[in-house]
Amino acid sequence: MVLGSWNDGAAKSALTDFVARVTAVGGADFVGPAERIAVFDNDGTLWTEQPLQTQIFFLIDRVRELVQKDPSLATRQPYQAVLERDLAALHALGKKGVLELFAATHTGMDEETFDAMAKSWFATAKHPKLGRLFRRCTYRPQIELLEYLRANGFKTYIVSGGGIDLIRAFAEEAYGIPPEQVIGSSAKLRFDVTGKNAVLQKLGELNSFDDREAKPQNIGLHIGRRPILAFGNSDGDLAMMRYTLAGKGARLALLLHHDDAEREFAYDRDFKLSPLVEALDKADAYGITVVSMKRDWNVVLGDS
Amino acid sequence: MVLGSWNDGAAKSALTDFVARVTAVGGADFVGPAERIAVFDNDGTLWTEQPLQTQIFFLIDRVRELVQKDPSLATRQPYQAVLERDLAALHALGKKGVLELFAATHTGMDEETFDAMAKSWFATAKHPKLGRLFRRCTYRPQIELLEYLRANGFKTYIVSGGGIDLIRAFAEEAYGIPPEQVIGSSAKLRFDVTGKNAVLQKLGELNSFDDREAKPQNIGLHIGRRPILAFGNSDGDLAMMRYTLAGKGARLALLLHHDDAEREFAYDRDFKLSPLVEALDKADAYGITVVSMKRDWNVVLGDS
Repeated sequence: MVLGSWNDGAAKSALTDFVARVTAVGGADFVGPAERIAVFDNDGTLWTEQPLQTQIFFLIDRVRELVQKDPSLATRQPYQAVLERDLAALHALGKKGVLELFAATHTGMDEETFDAMAKSWFATAKHPKLGRLFRRCTYRPQIELLEYLRANGFKTYIVSGGGIDLIRAFAEEAYGIPPEQVIGSSAKLRFDVTGKNAVLQKLGELNSFDDREAKPQNIGLHIGRRPILAFGNSDGDLAMMRYTLAGKGARLALLLHHDDAEREFAYDRDFKLSPLVEALDKADAYGITVVSMKRDWNVVLGDS
Repeated sequence: MVLGSWNDGAAKSALTDFVARVTAVGGADFVGPAERIAVFDNDGTLWTEQPLQTQIFFLIDRVRELVQKDPSLATRQPYQAVLERDLAALHALGKKGVLELFAATHTGMDEETFDAMAKSWFATAKHPKLGRLFRRCTYRPQIELLEYLRANGFKTYIVSGGGIDLIRAFAEEAYGIPPEQVIGSSAKLRFDVTGKNAVLQKLGELNSFDDREAKPQNIGLHIGRRPILAFGNSDGDLAMMRYTLAGKGARLALLLHHDDAEREFAYDRDFKLSPLVEALDKADAYGITVVSMKRDWNVVLGDS
């Protein structure tokens, strides 16, 4: 059954009608397969981002490892704030402290070493509230949607504020999305070659923070054509949605609203790490289809 | 016939043996389709780059257009040097002058406007020596190779020092390579949104000059896995070749040597815009297969 985890209603109809229109050969809204680009946010759109994004749980575990190697870090900022989950202290450290944390936990090694470390973490790390592996905190209706789109000739992309390498370490297995179709925040890389050895070293310098305006900008860099479908869940995805909708011909932008405290989490405006305000208030005006987790999905998470 | 424009010999055998090995299910060198990434330089590898890269002919035509709109530019540098093909003056203007030229001719408009302009130029612009459309200055043996690799489950990429948008404007039709599989030099983009309009504006600031070490670095950013095959023709491609060869398992790197003055052009060390020195001298030491245009190709250009 197509989109079996989606309840009948406006959201599901918007999806199936759109796909029918763009794939109808000879129809007014036909779009050739090469142009069928669909972009998805990751955190809160394809998997859970509460109470914190998975990236932050990964970061906390990495800080613990660093402290095991060098116990003096335990009483030094920004590490101490992470270990004590002291959000006020972290906030006070500002952007500089956050970038130092990411540099210390996500960089200073080559890409393949990071990938192996991330895969090893994903193999066992569990979500503290959902009690299942992080890589099993994906939404079943969205997995079905990705498969449905690909079965209809779409190329599916992730465009995330999360770190590009961490997502690449699990997205192929979890979503069927290969590394080259993952766009995310990234560190600068340095090519190091010695004899027969050649690696890409992850540096402690930010290359791109892939949020808000940076999302369409990175779509331009990586994909080079305007998507026809975009799916997000926060104001950080609004620029990508508006970029998608502004193209000629059939377009669809969807916004997942987390309104299901029983089955997952209910939040929007007050989630400081990634608030949803403008996209929700202006969804009608911008032509964005709001998807209610509570109303539109009959299942949230897949098998654990 | 597979690779019909390739003469039998070491280069063709290296290609067909490699493809046989990585696609032999159960064989020691088998590589899953998802990992079959092949990267190609563009200028001088997939099409002619003599006497100047196509990008520069495009730039000259763009300068002429700008001068028609503003005749005062004709006596101002760096424009005057371009109009008079005064290489010494251009050289004296240095990197700053070159970047100003690219900014003036390739940026200051949105991505879709540039794409339309580039496609319109490709529709009629002809190579001055070969007397055929620039987009027909591609090498037939390489088109066959791209098709052969794709028929064997490879994903084919361009990784070029040329401007990413100019290549994207013709690569899909000329090579069967879609925009999202083109990596190149790029300008920074700015997302501009007003009401229902939203565009990516090309800015006059360099994002990446995709040459030498930047090639593997951009492969890391865009593709996120190490290629198993790389093909280039100059020292600018050497880092990408060595990155490819340094991976585990079966790998192949090829270097096209332009040694055919009769059918195309003969050059290597002395081509100032993109010299071939180290890659040729060290090909054996690095494990790079040299392809001789004269010896290994029975046809150079395809139909005009």
